[in-house]
Amino acid sequence: MAFELEVERERLIPDTSVFTNPDVYREFGNSPNEAFANFLELVAKAPNVKVYMPSSVYDELKKMLKNPKIPPKARAVFRVKSPKKYEIQIPAFLLYELIDDIRQRINKGLRVAEEAVRASAHKSPDEILNALRRKYREALREGIVDSKEDIELILLALELDGLLLSADRGILNLADKMGIRWIPPEEIRDTIEGLIYSP
Amino acid sequence: MAFELEVERERLIPDTSVFTNPDVYREFGNSPNEAFANFLELVAKAPNVKVYMPSSVYDELKKMLKNPKIPPKARAVFRVKSPKKYEIQIPAFLLYELIDDIRQRINKGLRVAEEAVRASAHKSPDEILNALRRKYREALREGIVDSKEDIELILLALELDGLLLSADRGILNLADKMGIRWIPPEEIRDTIEGLIYSP
Repeated sequence: MAFELEVERERLIPDTSVFTNPDVYREFGNSPNEAFANFLELVAKAPNVKVYMPSSVYDELKKMLKNPKIPPKARAVFRVKSPKKYEIQIPAFLLYELIDDIRQRINKGLRVAEEAVRASAHKSPDEILNALRRKYREALREGIVDSKEDIELILLALELDGLLLSADRGILNLADKMGIRWIPPEEIRDTIEGLIYSP
Repeated sequence: MAFELEVERERLIPDTSVFTNPDVYREFGNSPNEAFANFLELVAKAPNVKVYMPSSVYDELKKMLKNPKIPPKARAVFRVKSPKKYEIQIPAFLLYELIDDIRQRINKGLRVAEEAVRASAHKSPDEILNALRRKYREALREGIVDSKEDIELILLALELDGLLLSADRGILNLADKMGIRWIPPEEIRDTIEGLIYSP
């Protein structure tokens, strides 16, 4: 057989949530560490499929999983690579949507804080503070990308024309707006098996 | 004289703050309306200089100034035009900086809200709520672009390679990061006079 240049047929870009969210990792193993190893071994069976992860996301994963092991058979499929963030360009209208979304969340956050102050007359401070933190977090954080790692995942998927795997609604929403391919968490296993059986 | 194609030598892109912030508009007139008219008349004396304004910003200005008049002599220099937001691309690293900045502000907003709840034990609700609104606003809004109009100004300056005129620190910060030309409010008048006297 002559030397063949490998063409990457698919590039999977998983978020940490795939290995830390119990609803997702249980498809692959009984613990996050086992799930990570099994996920990579499964991908290794699919011809010309690679897994890419930005270094910031891999660092996060290593912290969460303590000592994640990459099985020797799967070494060649796992690639740590950050997006070329100083080269990539994104459409300006995304900035509008983001600013608009954040503005509404900021207003909602103030209403949550005002409610907490008004409730202080007839509840204990600890009770108030706990409810405040929860509601404020919901108002300002949920369903929106809110970290450097989230942005790196999305930009890497954009740069590589990869398939984004995540259980995070904020990440998937933004990815969808940008025309990035993604699948919901419950379809991850079937998707990889599809890549194995129909090469 | 043969027909000459007009080359635009400079494009000025003023924010509403130029006509509504007393420290700035007093350079041009005693009231916002007078300042707006005088600003345009001054620009009209400079050869091949135009003033561009996104329609959203002009709408805002019309609301603030009630019935702003464009002097007949200056009609030809004032152009309402929004940026091509579905075509313009911006560098992805800006998204990182924005998300990072907002994340820090969101954390600060929560601390402001917690303080307000703790202070509720020994102050009147009205006093607490007023301080909360002021501090929350400072934490989440000041020094950052926080409206569609702000973004339109910046993108229009980018698209037209224009000179941004504003008294808003958030707008100027972002413009500077993007390599857009801008001048501080106190140099606006001198800059226009410079364009008149050295054509």
